[in-house]
Amino acid sequence: MAVERALEHLAKHDKAVIDRLIEWLRIPSISTDPKHTGDVRKAAEWCAARLRLAGVSAELRETGTKEKPGHPVVWGHHPGPAGYSGPHVLFYGHYDVQPVDPLELWESAPFEPVIRPASGEVGERIVARGAVDDKGQVVTFLESLVAWKETTGSIPIKLSVLIEGEEEMGSRNLYKYVDDHSAELKMCDVCVISDTGMLQRHHPAITYGVRGLCYTEVILHGPDQDLHSGLWGGRCPNPANELTKVLAQLWDADRRVTIPGFYDKVLEPTAKEREAWRRLPFDAVAALKKIGLGADANIGEAGWTATEREWARPTAEINGVYGGYMGPGSKTVIPSFAGAKVSFRLVANQDPAEIEALFKKWLDARTPPGCRWEFKKHSGGFAGNVSIDSPYLAAATRACEKVTGSKPDLIKSGGSIPVVGMLKSKIGLDTLLVGFGLDDDRVHSPNEKFELSCLRLGLKTHTRLIDEFSRMTR
Amino acid sequence: MAVERALEHLAKHDKAVIDRLIEWLRIPSISTDPKHTGDVRKAAEWCAARLRLAGVSAELRETGTKEKPGHPVVWGHHPGPAGYSGPHVLFYGHYDVQPVDPLELWESAPFEPVIRPASGEVGERIVARGAVDDKGQVVTFLESLVAWKETTGSIPIKLSVLIEGEEEMGSRNLYKYVDDHSAELKMCDVCVISDTGMLQRHHPAITYGVRGLCYTEVILHGPDQDLHSGLWGGRCPNPANELTKVLAQLWDADRRVTIPGFYDKVLEPTAKEREAWRRLPFDAVAALKKIGLGADANIGEAGWTATEREWARPTAEINGVYGGYMGPGSKTVIPSFAGAKVSFRLVANQDPAEIEALFKKWLDARTPPGCRWEFKKHSGGFAGNVSIDSPYLAAATRACEKVTGSKPDLIKSGGSIPVVGMLKSKIGLDTLLVGFGLDDDRVHSPNEKFELSCLRLGLKTHTRLIDEFSRMTR
Repeated sequence: MAVERALEHLAKHDKAVIDRLIEWLRIPSISTDPKHTGDVRKAAEWCAARLRLAGVSAELRETGTKEKPGHPVVWGHHPGPAGYSGPHVLFYGHYDVQPVDPLELWESAPFEPVIRPASGEVGERIVARGAVDDKGQVVTFLESLVAWKETTGSIPIKLSVLIEGEEEMGSRNLYKYVDDHSAELKMCDVCVISDTGMLQRHHPAITYGVRGLCYTEVILHGPDQDLHSGLWGGRCPNPANELTKVLAQLWDADRRVTIPGFYDKVLEPTAKEREAWRRLPFDAVAALKKIGLGADANIGEAGWTATEREWARPTAEINGVYGGYMGPGSKTVIPSFAGAKVSFRLVANQDPAEIEALFKKWLDARTPPGCRWEFKKHSGGFAGNVSIDSPYLAAATRACEKVTGSKPDLIKSGGSIPVVGMLKSKIGLDTLLVGFGLDDDRVHSPNEKFELSCLRLGLKTHTRLIDEFSRMTR
Repeated sequence: MAVERALEHLAKHDKAVIDRLIEWLRIPSISTDPKHTGDVRKAAEWCAARLRLAGVSAELRETGTKEKPGHPVVWGHHPGPAGYSGPHVLFYGHYDVQPVDPLELWESAPFEPVIRPASGEVGERIVARGAVDDKGQVVTFLESLVAWKETTGSIPIKLSVLIEGEEEMGSRNLYKYVDDHSAELKMCDVCVISDTGMLQRHHPAITYGVRGLCYTEVILHGPDQDLHSGLWGGRCPNPANELTKVLAQLWDADRRVTIPGFYDKVLEPTAKEREAWRRLPFDAVAALKKIGLGADANIGEAGWTATEREWARPTAEINGVYGGYMGPGSKTVIPSFAGAKVSFRLVANQDPAEIEALFKKWLDARTPPGCRWEFKKHSGGFAGNVSIDSPYLAAATRACEKVTGSKPDLIKSGGSIPVVGMLKSKIGLDTLLVGFGLDDDRVHSPNEKFELSCLRLGLKTHTRLIDEFSRMTR
């Protein structure tokens, strides 16, 4: 059978697949850092070349404006076999990666991928920035296409491919891209993304919901110059003191966000859903142990479990804070300003623009005497939710079962994949998140890794998924 | 008369005096930055050479330990005329300077001194790091010695000189130095320092009190790695959130420090003192205007005026705060740690070591779940107070009157000069602070300056002061 031939081909060329991934990981495509703009494009071209090898027509499409150019979208299309009557599948992924700091905590250079023994089990892992988020996962899809092409002469389904380069900066230009190409995108029936994780090794999970995001930066300005803390301390506003006093009010004693209206539109999970989640093999305390914390660190919004806090509850987090003297030693200064990166994880049906406006209003009501706010919006996206009855979800479930012999876990993720909410709200397209990461992959952290067993599971699952889609009728 | 000849000499060699100061200012003697250790020593050698030119025997004395060497003390001594029966005067100053960041706010390179028109009045200013704090002020003393030497053949008083290189790092090694050389220092009758400011141009002020300092750094550690704020946000401690919540509790609604016992030992100013301060020509709102703030920024501990807040009330200030992603753009991270530089300005009779212990205890009582504190002590010093009836204060007052024709302002300073508290508590020595800076000199800030009119006033005052001391009998 065709699918078996494709699977055998992947097994036979295992090393070549890994070597090609390493090649891609060597390109430091950090989208938020302007000095890597050239590398980001290089990573896009690498991806387009792989698609062409699989017989997919691929091109780079520019985004942004002349004044503020964005990173290109890799767009690909394959018409499928003559007389194909199955679903038109859109595959989405991203080729950009997070910044690498703090660099000193990396055991090997972030863009010099190394193969290391996998922790706690037989096998190996590949360590590099982007290993699992998202280059390694995109490769599980790209290589399965190549395997189909090389063993059967062509891919058995109609598909379009959208690999963007701005996911780690909030997919800033993708909103306009989706608007500009909505006609083309509306031709698709379902979106498949591999950018999420599994609860268990060797056991696929399908994610049917992700959180949204509203990422802001607030800077509190006081005196027009840094001041001597002896001559001025006690008789003028200190922006570092004042910013601290304001941001501390973001949470109440139950760790609920205090911004009025913040929870108004929240769609709470059903009792049935909460019950199903409780049955999943998720151990909150064991997860904390992996990041060096004890059971006493199992904290969050009162009245919810760790799973519910991650999947179904919105948050307010300080992702960065800065001000005054941050170097070695001491400096007796009252800083002219202090700032913080403050982000909110959102759930259905919160609107990022509304949350941003509520936060701004909340800050304005707390402006310290003699100070003024500077407000920056960095990124935002709606949460995503897929219907549990989707026939495409059923097809994905079958594919997973055929690979492993058992039902996949149906889960959600606390992370944000802006495109999911975007495709649903703008195009009406449902998204299946079939990801192969693990909880300890150090996503966004030093020593990010992707286990080779997970890579191989992804290759098999995508190959099967393409087979399942090819047997469907719309 | 001898003093007139010395004064004429200074007037005649005005340009040479300024050129020599510029030469000293070119040496980037930043004591807190290890990469400038060589420059710090160079600045010390420059100073010793000037003293020798005035006939003062001068040497560099090492401080610190083999493992942790400090910056050298410049020590000088001059026996005075045969049969001298006047006071043995100790002159103290420092040749080290503050770091220069934020560098981008400097209009000229911090260590390439430039002469610019003085703001708001006729005359000129010299702009450079260290111009007024403290090289420019030390020069007013050094050059008056040279003038005495060159016009009369020798200095008419017995004096010792202690110019240290660690004032901007809290005079860390001076404590041991003073202990080790206490016998020598006990021979002195009074200490004179020029490292403070005046309330009015052309009108000397004698400072009879300075605040103490307790400078700490607290780092809150949580997870053993940076985390993805989507996957973890809401279900584990975020050190940036938690540090913010703890530090915000440092002040109550009246802006009083909430640490139990913090105010226990505070020596409050007398009603008579507070009354005298109110009569001083100090305009709090005008001072705020100079740093870009309005009257609404005239805030501080309830129940005290701006002058009282600076001169007689202790404070808690966040001098720096850092954690998570501080670069451009956004990064959705929960940081592994977040830290802050927290300092306390102290007044008589608070003990820096006691305040540090109280703060530690206060933090421990507020350790967030799953987190731990890392505590660093950077520096500390007692506040200083001089008796208002001191005969040396009377002599300094006469010297100022003879220069300007009017009584100097008797003031205090909110800044900290560790040596003042040190000499009083260890040696029993009183200190006269006769400084020539102005409120807008941008001490510790970009574009620090010293007005040439202030430099010249300092030269005259020190020349007169030496004359007054030479007429005293112990």
